[in-house]
Amino acid sequence: MSLDEDSSAKPHERLARALANDLAAVDSLIRERMASDNAPRIPEVTAHLVDAGGKRVRPMLTLAAARLCGYDGDNHHKLAATVEFIHTATLLHDDVVDESRQRRGKPTANLLWDNKTSVLVGDYLFARSFKLMVETGSLRVLDILSDAAATIAEGEVLQLTAATNLATTEEVYLSVVRGKTAALFAAACEVGGVISGADDVQVKALRAYGDALGIAFQMADDLLDLDGAAAAMGKNVGDDFREQKLTLPIIRAIAAADHEERAFWTRTIGKGQQNEGDLDTALALIGKHGTLETTRADALAWSESAKSALKVLPDHPLRDMMRDLADYVVKRIN
Amino acid sequence: MSLDEDSSAKPHERLARALANDLAAVDSLIRERMASDNAPRIPEVTAHLVDAGGKRVRPMLTLAAARLCGYDGDNHHKLAATVEFIHTATLLHDDVVDESRQRRGKPTANLLWDNKTSVLVGDYLFARSFKLMVETGSLRVLDILSDAAATIAEGEVLQLTAATNLATTEEVYLSVVRGKTAALFAAACEVGGVISGADDVQVKALRAYGDALGIAFQMADDLLDLDGAAAAMGKNVGDDFREQKLTLPIIRAIAAADHEERAFWTRTIGKGQQNEGDLDTALALIGKHGTLETTRADALAWSESAKSALKVLPDHPLRDMMRDLADYVVKRIN
Repeated sequence: MSLDEDSSAKPHERLARALANDLAAVDSLIRERMASDNAPRIPEVTAHLVDAGGKRVRPMLTLAAARLCGYDGDNHHKLAATVEFIHTATLLHDDVVDESRQRRGKPTANLLWDNKTSVLVGDYLFARSFKLMVETGSLRVLDILSDAAATIAEGEVLQLTAATNLATTEEVYLSVVRGKTAALFAAACEVGGVISGADDVQVKALRAYGDALGIAFQMADDLLDLDGAAAAMGKNVGDDFREQKLTLPIIRAIAAADHEERAFWTRTIGKGQQNEGDLDTALALIGKHGTLETTRADALAWSESAKSALKVLPDHPLRDMMRDLADYVVKRIN
Repeated sequence: MSLDEDSSAKPHERLARALANDLAAVDSLIRERMASDNAPRIPEVTAHLVDAGGKRVRPMLTLAAARLCGYDGDNHHKLAATVEFIHTATLLHDDVVDESRQRRGKPTANLLWDNKTSVLVGDYLFARSFKLMVETGSLRVLDILSDAAATIAEGEVLQLTAATNLATTEEVYLSVVRGKTAALFAAACEVGGVISGADDVQVKALRAYGDALGIAFQMADDLLDLDGAAAAMGKNVGDDFREQKLTLPIIRAIAAADHEERAFWTRTIGKGQQNEGDLDTALALIGKHGTLETTRADALAWSESAKSALKVLPDHPLRDMMRDLADYVVKRIN
């Protein structure tokens, strides 16, 4: 099927088809490099994650950025595998739970493996990802991705400390979102440009695209958690609220709260004392202050910003798919 | 006080004195780089560890190796800080415990911080350490230390899976020990030589020294856990046995076990069903097969091997201190 006949497919599916050969090379590199002769449990754990078949959005961004800039070598495979390793490592480390959490009877993602295994296998993948980067011979790539790794960890620590703190600002929220999503999206795009020898304007544009795409994606995700319409898509409404997460619509509702409303947020988010009916009250307060609408507007603006960044890049079918991807991440909320 | 007047001090104390200026520079670099504008909890956690005042053996090895090879720049400070960051990150990740463990009422090192914080702050330090290495501009250094980080994680995963497995071989034991201790010792020494532009023979010798030093140290530690004489030094006897750890004296006692003895080890180590008096029985079996003595002999041989590796390095007071350090790590068992 040619790319043209295929315009009804989702943009990440079109990217996957256009980059099929590259993705196959990345997959075999991942399989080869996650092996450990010494510790067979490592590939067991990582295979479980890697085979789970995520959409591979991050490695595709690296591959697309490199191809778009005319890259013709094979270091982009190493970088795409690096990006997927870092992503998988952060997923494993996200799985680590605290005893207090387990006690609440929440299902955890690390039921198959214990905390310690999640931590150590994640560490192994981090180490292997740096080894892959070293093989590209590019110190600039190492610099970009070690910065991204630091930003991810910072963002997650910030989320821990910001959680339940009603004074959390939108600025802190953005740092958290960059850590959770946008930093790796931005770095994934940027290193694709760097390895291709793209000029500074294009490299900056790729970075800006990934950053804005990640922020738009995360804001849309936060929104869906509080949007009744999302229930139709099989998503639970209010998970973030129950986990006392300060997402943008809630941060804005708190900022606009009167005395009585503030007491409600202090009890439910600050102290985590939630009763039946509280989610409905929260949704009503969010509705009253219109913060779903302002969050939606912001997510759309970030999506526009992502698309706009692409303008300085070469005219190319991959560029069109990247543009469509920026539309797609906010399509669910529009 | 001159170095000569000071020969009664412990070798790591003499190293610390000889390298005082370098160590001060490393300390201020560590303080500067562990800061996070975005997430103030990060320096809180790391300061707690870094200020706890370990002996700084690993960064001293890097500094000593570099000085010994005539290095005159300041990249060795960055590498020493890198090595300490990696070490601190692994300590933080070691603190992560599983609920089952906590239930047994063991005191855990992460009482001050929760699991999630330990993981994320460790990740932050890993990322920062790679950033520091990038600044040295040496891809070879990045390669050596990312290999070491992978070996550390592999060794720890191996320890998890080998634990309670009576078929654990001496080869697996050595991989575990390299992960726990020797890999970072070896890399710390090696990068000091690499950054100095030392020739391959010297770089290899530095690596061999660090590897053998780490193995000797860990074997001595395993031995002390099962040696009554250690009780006099305020160390609990039998902690490893109670934690079902397969240390070298136990691995060898199992390999020499008759049918009845094997049943004892299967129950106590394999299944963890330990009763009063079992530690005494274990010590008696270890005594019967003389495995404390053979482990002691091996630890001493590794210490000799460390000293022997130093011979191709320049004659220098720092070399003498490194030699004395290799004696010191096995002094407790000799």
